[in-house]
Amino acid sequence: MKKSKKPESSFHLLKQLCEIQAPSGHEKPVKEFLLNYTKREKKHWLSQPEIIEGNEFQDCFMLKFGKPRTAIFAHMDTVGFSVRYFNQLVSIGSPNAEAGTRLVGLDPLGPIECELEYDKEDHAFYKFGRPIERGTTLTYKIDFRETKDFIQTPYLDNRLGIFNALKVAETLEDGVIVFSCWEEHGGGSIGYLAKYIQKKWKVRQAIISDITWVSDGVEHGKGVAISLRDRNIPRRSFVNQIIAIAQKNKIPYQLEVEGSGSSDGGELQRGPLSFDWCFVGAPEHGAHTPHEKVHKTDIETMIELYEKVMKEL
Amino acid sequence: MKKSKKPESSFHLLKQLCEIQAPSGHEKPVKEFLLNYTKREKKHWLSQPEIIEGNEFQDCFMLKFGKPRTAIFAHMDTVGFSVRYFNQLVSIGSPNAEAGTRLVGLDPLGPIECELEYDKEDHAFYKFGRPIERGTTLTYKIDFRETKDFIQTPYLDNRLGIFNALKVAETLEDGVIVFSCWEEHGGGSIGYLAKYIQKKWKVRQAIISDITWVSDGVEHGKGVAISLRDRNIPRRSFVNQIIAIAQKNKIPYQLEVEGSGSSDGGELQRGPLSFDWCFVGAPEHGAHTPHEKVHKTDIETMIELYEKVMKEL
Amino acid sequence: MKKSKKPESSFHLLKQLCEIQAPSGHEKPVKEFLLNYTKREKKHWLSQPEIIEGNEFQDCFMLKFGKPRTAIFAHMDTVGFSVRYFNQLVSIGSPNAEAGTRLVGLDPLGPIECELEYDKEDHAFYKFGRPIERGTTLTYKIDFRETKDFIQTPYLDNRLGIFNALKVAETLEDGVIVFSCWEEHGGGSIGYLAKYIQKKWKVRQAIISDITWVSDGVEHGKGVAISLRDRNIPRRSFVNQIIAIAQKNKIPYQLEVEGSGSSDGGELQRGPLSFDWCFVGAPEHGAHTPHEKVHKTDIETMIELYEKVMKEL
Repeated sequence: MKKSKKPESSFHLLKQLCEIQAPSGHEKPVKEFLLNYTKREKKHWLSQPEIIEGNEFQDCFMLKFGKPRTAIFAHMDTVGFSVRYFNQLVSIGSPNAEAGTRLVGLDPLGPIECELEYDKEDHAFYKFGRPIERGTTLTYKIDFRETKDFIQTPYLDNRLGIFNALKVAETLEDGVIVFSCWEEHGGGSIGYLAKYIQKKWKVRQAIISDITWVSDGVEHGKGVAISLRDRNIPRRSFVNQIIAIAQKNKIPYQLEVEGSGSSDGGELQRGPLSFDWCFVGAPEHGAHTPHEKVHKTDIETMIELYEKVMKEL
Repeated sequence: MKKSKKPESSFHLLKQLCEIQAPSGHEKPVKEFLLNYTKREKKHWLSQPEIIEGNEFQDCFMLKFGKPRTAIFAHMDTVGFSVRYFNQLVSIGSPNAEAGTRLVGLDPLGPIECELEYDKEDHAFYKFGRPIERGTTLTYKIDFRETKDFIQTPYLDNRLGIFNALKVAETLEDGVIVFSCWEEHGGGSIGYLAKYIQKKWKVRQAIISDITWVSDGVEHGKGVAISLRDRNIPRRSFVNQIIAIAQKNKIPYQLEVEGSGSSDGGELQRGPLSFDWCFVGAPEHGAHTPHEKVHKTDIETMIELYEKVMKEL
Repeated sequence: MKKSKKPESSFHLLKQLCEIQAPSGHEKPVKEFLLNYTKREKKHWLSQPEIIEGNEFQDCFMLKFGKPRTAIFAHMDTVGFSVRYFNQLVSIGSPNAEAGTRLVGLDPLGPIECELEYDKEDHAFYKFGRPIERGTTLTYKIDFRETKDFIQTPYLDNRLGIFNALKVAETLEDGVIVFSCWEEHGGGSIGYLAKYIQKKWKVRQAIISDITWVSDGVEHGKGVAISLRDRNIPRRSFVNQIIAIAQKNKIPYQLEVEGSGSSDGGELQRGPLSFDWCFVGAPEHGAHTPHEKVHKTDIETMIELYEKVMKEL
């Protein structure tokens, strides 16, 4: 019954995840997809998770396996735009797209595919044949590009973090996977999710399954990035444990040191609980653009390292 | 015994509220006024509230009616100034006043009415016949202007939000009204207030009784604003319930979509509890200036919508 | 058995504290020093504290004396630098040092003493004979300068706040001293520490033992500063109680009013608990530089006021 630990040769599931429209505050469709996926697939998994959801978790949910010592946090939301007045757009999170980008959405008059424009002061607008209802959310149109070595598509951040969590779920025996909301737009769900798992199972270790940046020190194809810091600084002695697991298991990894950027880890850091956390994720080129690009080796080593960390930490 | 649901033709109570000097950190006089008002007036109310206060709530307090499902949050503080060294002033919140504005306060030498000045780098100073004691707080002198259609005065933000809550209190059967502190200056009371009402009565729905902006999409006299977002983005499915109640009851309303601005709702969003929230308030012209102006229709529809929401949500 | 309340004529302990390298996220060495110091010295103290520590408090710990009503918060971390890629440095907190400043650290190749440099865009670099391992932390080299009136050294902020707490510990009968982490870099430990002491002993009063600024209104040698506000505004009625204790005991003090700056008090303010707090600390010249300078009178009055506040509040 035990499944192979290798990622599927096909990234069909990742493509499906990318196609779900769900900017911050509108995560429900991702939750529904993931609940259906879990109910359908879990019979193939090594260990059967308990599904924890309900109105008291808003649109978040958790998969609990065995006796959790460590939590995986993966956020479900993406960057995007809200339609304001006239043809104005307001950012959700920090999207970074060139004029002409195709945006998609839905309002009471039907499905929308429009074009992104900017004025001279860099204010964003949409160009479409009709007015779009106030408050409608728009996201990048998916253009999923797979080559031998790379995946390129909008929203690898963070549908790839979710993909990673689902792959790890296949063989997970003890641990909890937390699917969170609002990460791209100031947060707001980590506090109660962390509280629940700490109160229930005394979990105080977290790994953040999210996507980071290719930079002058972190390259495509050199392995998953373990972040020593971004805007926030986790407790170094905890991060050292993750590094030791990667070394022991000979999993290629890269150490990241940044002064900016944040993640669900930042919310754990600043929140009112004692939580050790570490960001562990594949580096991408083109963060928050419609052209996010990740090397397949970095995806594979990400999944491998998560599997080991969840066992050995 | 049941009172008319129409607001009093007179806004005498609102004027009294505006006259209380209470910038962030100095909310005690508002609390005392409201406790006296409640003790005096509650015999005319449909349902008798429990008053919840004490040192563990600092200068905040709550009125609890029946079995609460939803909370109204109204902040008691205003913007203003702290006297620094020499004749320098430091902002409390983000006041926005022209040079020459009359500021009032009190120090051990007596009552103060002085004038606001700026230097070339836009630093604020006071002009007064004597030095004012370090740390004294100053607020705009009240100049309450009522016409057939409009109310104009400093501090409609948020004495009008409090006025709304008191009007709703007259007929409220189930709900809790939370009077909060520090909203204009970074917050700090919502966390423990929200925790109390959630622990005690499992309340996880909040309506923010506060004042928003007239803008290029929200006009005077077109009805209360229901905010789809400001700097923070509430869960859309919750906001949709408020909109549905306005529609069902044929209450004029306007949908707001902003990229900036925050409220007690932002603290609920970022705080460590699961809370759905929605900002519902009259739009004003001249936010944080001594000339805040609101249309009476927008006040009336605000009260009407709150009454329905507290019943039907 | 009762010790003199005067600070030791020698500041040897303060020098030892300054020499410990421990920027935010790497506080463990300070904790170890303080635990050893406490275990060795407490037999000379008036009252025997309970030591509260463990993995659930990360690298923080507490000393609990008698029946606490009030907590002293003193942060253990300092500003510094993380080694990024190549010879780049990223700030920990907000260090403020001139080019040429000596920085020290340790990596697997051995101890480091290097020089701080800046490029034209003010990016920080190190100059050293060999590459330093990615993620290594660097701090100012200690140059402890004592004259008749002044102490000058890097990291008076906040090793002097800790020194103050240890001096107060000698005669403390009821109270808790909380040694916190991450204060210089966005915080993250105050939430759970405050929760613990409030849940355990109903403590809701806090004094922040930290260092503030000499300014145009606060001078060297005029006494400890009691802060009416910085970026955050504490409840004025609480701060007034501290001022009254200083007045009653004729302890020289200065009132501070600032618009910026923050401390562990800011985390208490914004956190989800009801906590009254007040910043009480010696003013220094050269904050966050390698040349922080404090007048001995301000240290002495700081210790005196803490002793009284912990008794009388």
